[in-house]
Parts: sequence; C-alpha cells; structure tokens
Amino acid sequence: MGHGSGGRLTAQLVRELFLPAFDNPVLGRLDDQAVVAAGDARVAFTTDSFVVTPLFFPGGNIGELAVNGTVNDLAMCGAKPLALAAAFIVEEGLAMEELAQVVDSMAAAARAAGVAIVTGDTKVVNRHSADKLFVTTTGIGLVPEGAAISAANARAGDVILLSGTIADHGMAVMTQREGLEIEGEIRSDTQALHGLVASMIEAGEIHALRDPTRGGLGTSLCEIAAAAGVGIEIEARAIPVRETVRGACELLGIDPLFVANEGKLVAFAAPERADAVLSAMRARPEGRDAVAIGRAVSAHPGMAVLRTEVGGSRVLDLPFHEQLPRIC
Amino acid sequence: MGHGSGGRLTAQLVRELFLPAFDNPVLGRLDDQAVVAAGDARVAFTTDSFVVTPLFFPGGNIGELAVNGTVNDLAMCGAKPLALAAAFIVEEGLAMEELAQVVDSMAAAARAAGVAIVTGDTKVVNRHSADKLFVTTTGIGLVPEGAAISAANARAGDVILLSGTIADHGMAVMTQREGLEIEGEIRSDTQALHGLVASMIEAGEIHALRDPTRGGLGTSLCEIAAAAGVGIEIEARAIPVRETVRGACELLGIDPLFVANEGKLVAFAAPERADAVLSAMRARPEGRDAVAIGRAVSAHPGMAVLRTEVGGSRVLDLPFHEQLPRIC
Repeated sequence: MGHGSGGRLTAQLVRELFLPAFDNPVLGRLDDQAVVAAGDARVAFTTDSFVVTPLFFPGGNIGELAVNGTVNDLAMCGAKPLALAAAFIVEEGLAMEELAQVVDSMAAAARAAGVAIVTGDTKVVNRHSADKLFVTTTGIGLVPEGAAISAANARAGDVILLSGTIADHGMAVMTQREGLEIEGEIRSDTQALHGLVASMIEAGEIHALRDPTRGGLGTSLCEIAAAAGVGIEIEARAIPVRETVRGACELLGIDPLFVANEGKLVAFAAPERADAVLSAMRARPEGRDAVAIGRAVSAHPGMAVLRTEVGGSRVLDLPFHEQLPRIC
Repeated sequence: MGHGSGGRLTAQLVRELFLPAFDNPVLGRLDDQAVVAAGDARVAFTTDSFVVTPLFFPGGNIGELAVNGTVNDLAMCGAKPLALAAAFIVEEGLAMEELAQVVDSMAAAARAAGVAIVTGDTKVVNRHSADKLFVTTTGIGLVPEGAAISAANARAGDVILLSGTIADHGMAVMTQREGLEIEGEIRSDTQALHGLVASMIEAGEIHALRDPTRGGLGTSLCEIAAAAGVGIEIEARAIPVRETVRGACELLGIDPLFVANEGKLVAFAAPERADAVLSAMRARPEGRDAVAIGRAVSAHPGMAVLRTEVGGSRVLDLPFHEQLPRIC
C-alpha cells in the first residue's frame, strides 16, 4: 500500500475501494464534509486523522492542527461549528508532558474557534505500534438555511479568490523535519477560518469553498474543476508565496502549488459581488493577503490551467505520489 | 505512558488531563456519547478509535467492530443512528485485500444497522509507524423527544438487566492472539444493539444503559454507581458466561466481569415494568439470553457489590491496569 497519501493513488483508493463499498449519495459528493438531515436541521459532519511528524513544528502542533482542520472542513460548506470529538492513539512511552501540551493546544484552539470538545476516546498501543501520537478529530456543524456551497456548484464566470499565501504549513513541517537551514523561519499557517467564511457569505454569493490542505491549492482546483465540470484558469503571478517558502521549495524541488496549507481557503464567488467578497476578506486578519487569482470558464471543462509568469500555460494534474507524506 | 488502556490509569488520565483542559458540561457527564442541540434536534455524538490486534478474529474483524461499537454508543442514550464517519490510518505494506475485506465488513455492518458511512479520511504511514490498520469511527444520532437515558439517571430500586453472556468478545480476541488451544470456538459477540434498545424503551422506563466494552460489565457497573450516586448489588450466579469462555478465563487467570463485550448491554429499568422490558429483550435475537442480575440500592452509594456463588460478597473496583490491551 502506497495509497492514501494525498495524490492520485489516494483518489484511486477512494474511487475503487471506498466509494463502491460505502455507496451512498452523500459520500459520492466527495466534499470535505457530509451534510445530514437531523430533524429540521442540516448537520455538517467531517472527520480527519492527523499523523503529522514531528508533533511540534514552528507555528503549531498536531493538536491545534487537528482542531483547526476540522473546524475548517465544517466551514467549507458554510457551517457554524457545533461540537468536536477527539480520539487519541498514543504510543506507549510518550511523555505525559508532550500529551498535556497537545491537549492544552487543542483546548485553546477550540476556545478560539468558539466550539467545545464534547466527547473523546484514548487508546494506548505498545511501542512501535504507532508513532508517538495520532489524533482523529470529528466535527459537527449547523448549515445555515439557504446555504448551498459545494465543489459541484462552481460555475463558469465565477471569480476565484485565495485568502493568502500558500505552502506555509507544509514547508514549515518539512524544513523542521529535514533540519533544513534556511534564512528566516517558516511558520505553519494553522488557523480557524469559519469567521472569515461567515464574512464572505454576508458580502456576496459563494458557490464553492475549499481549504487546500493535503495536496495544496493545485489539488483543490483540480477537484473543483472535475466536480463542477468547469474549466479553471489561474495566473501564477497572482498567487502569493512567501520568499522563504519559495526558497525552501526550490531547494527541495517541490512545487508550492501542491504543498499543504492549514489556514487558507480558495473560493469561487459569483462575479457580481466578488469585489465585495474580496474586501470583506481583506478586512479580517485571516484574509489580510486575499487576492483574486483567476476565473472559472466554460472552455476545457474539468481542467485547471495555470498561466505561467513567462506567458506560457500548464495543465494542473494531481501528483502521482504525495510530495510530502505525514504533513497533517 | 501506560495510561489509556481501560483501567484506573485511564480514568486518571481523563480526570486529570482531558476534563480540566476541555472543560465543558457535556464532556463532564462522561457518558459514552455527548448530546448536542442542532436547531430543534438533539444530536448524539460519539467517537472511538479501534486498534484491535489481530485485525481478524473468530466472529468478526476490526471493521464491523468499529461500526457496531459506534452504533451501540449512540444507542446507549436511546438515539437512532443517523450517519457514520470512518477515518483509516494504514501502515504501508498492508495488503490491499485485507483493507478491502475490512471495508466490505464495515459496509455490511452499516447496511445491517440501517446507517450510512457518509464521510471519511485515509492516511498511510510508513512501516512500524502503525500496526497494520487503525480505524476511528464517529457517529451521529437523533435522540428521541423525551428520552433521558444517562448513567447519572440510575435510581435506587431500578432492576439491572443484562442482555446476554459476557466476555465473549475479549476472550475471542485473546485466545486467537495467544494461539490458545481450547475445546470449542469462542466467537466475538459484535452486533448492533439499537433495535434492541428501541424495543426496551417501548416496553418500559429505562434510566441508564451501557454497552460494557473496554473494562467489561464490572467497569460499567462501577461507573454507573459513581455517576448516579447509587449502590449496586448483583448476583454472580445470575450472570451468564459460556462454558468455553469461563474455561479460557480460568486458564489465563482473568475475571470475565472485566472482559470486553461488543454486543451486549446492561440496563437500569424502573421496577414497575422491568418484567415487560425483560420479555421485550428476550423476544429479539440480540436479547435472547437476557436476565435480571441485580438491583440499584440506596445503601453504599457509589459502590457496586457482587454477591458470590458461595454466599460471600465482593466490592467491584476498576482494575489498575487493563487486563487485556488492544481488544477493541
């Protein structure tokens, strides 16, 4: 098994194993969250296992990553987070202080996001049966009436908005893990985005939202193009990448477009009020560096095309293997 | 860390680390599930990581265990399961056929329970960073109007009902793992119990319910006594244990009262209609062997006492270490 690490092999695993077995229309939508009816309410539901190594990295640790990641998966359909669950798999021998630090970070991140961790589970396994600590967080959220945000709902004409710089999280973990000497620190961008999403929904008409985590912005764009059957055209020069991050990517031969973010989103907004949405994003700290990076088009449906800085163009495609394993 | 494996050390970890950090009234109830308001609905919410070894054992595998375990945690507050999420942590090198078999079992168990797996996640980690496969399942369910089933709601006078034989699951895994030669096969009792619970609620007044998984029946009784502030008295001779299971327990020096079950429940029922509840249980295959095993009493609040077969009595207490690690 080399599957499951975020590239084409994962997509294959999902398509050939999980989808046929668990056959149902909600899972088939392949959004980052499911939406389930509970009485009169629509409940968003999402789960993720976090296996990042090392547990602590510049800008964060596995605990706040797990909380923010789950809050963001809820937010990507416009849902207001209601509650979180946390399941811990602990390798025997993990220092109690390390676990306590992770748990405290989770509590702080949950408080900051205004959501409570209401249920959980802990399993300890013997040495070498896990790598220190895995955290699986699951969230439920309330989808507001009328909200219809889904990758499948992107339309030709939509303006594509990006909330800030890309590749910070992945390169923060990578440089820490490899002990790479670089000038200036690269910090993870882990943060909760549900407040930003609420402002955006208020300001305009949002059709599709993704937080480009595993697989990065490039993968999110490929997925939205496929789900909505639209073409995507983006401008490389418009995509903000920090100098330190760009330098580290070049050093390691990694394309920042396919590196994980943990506090950014990409939005497909109806063109009429896209400017208002962009202004609303820039008015908040999480969206301070927001930019328009391109358009959804009716040409080349299902395909995302990057206009390069030198005037050429390149079709984006999922990498066969994930470039960076265990980044989240 | 020797914590987290189901005995007193786990209770200490929860009390000293998780509860203070994640401080909130829902978690503080320490039931197997949280209940969260979503619009006008009450949503039950529960998560569990499954780390059982071996993955396949007589009577089941990690996949159906994960689905049934989560369905049962929802059922223990009377909730009707609405949807499940599944997160997989896979060790590189796991055979695709093994994963497919687990996934197919999960799908079959979910179909049998009438609930869909609507969202999920997969992470692959390198060899020796996990032990083959861990599955974390999370469930949401709808709590019916008026239902108020919680460990804290057990009352003196309640009749204590047990749905069948104990210790089957734990000893099935244990004998398989140790290659123990015994006469007759011991099979896991993994099954979904929400249908049984629905029949019981219809027949009488249920105050508290637990499925005695990790830590077994003994641990569930200690927890209910503590949560409700009642005394508990049970009769050893009334508790059904299969002969093969009893033999294996004796051989290994293990007390069946503290061995995991995965398809049994213990109920605290108001005495007036306890007989009707027991009849309703016996009318279903999951409750065919149901029995009354004792009473909640006002004497010795917080303490569970076992009347032994020879006429003595013994106070039940959580084992310091879990007797059987990685049984679920």
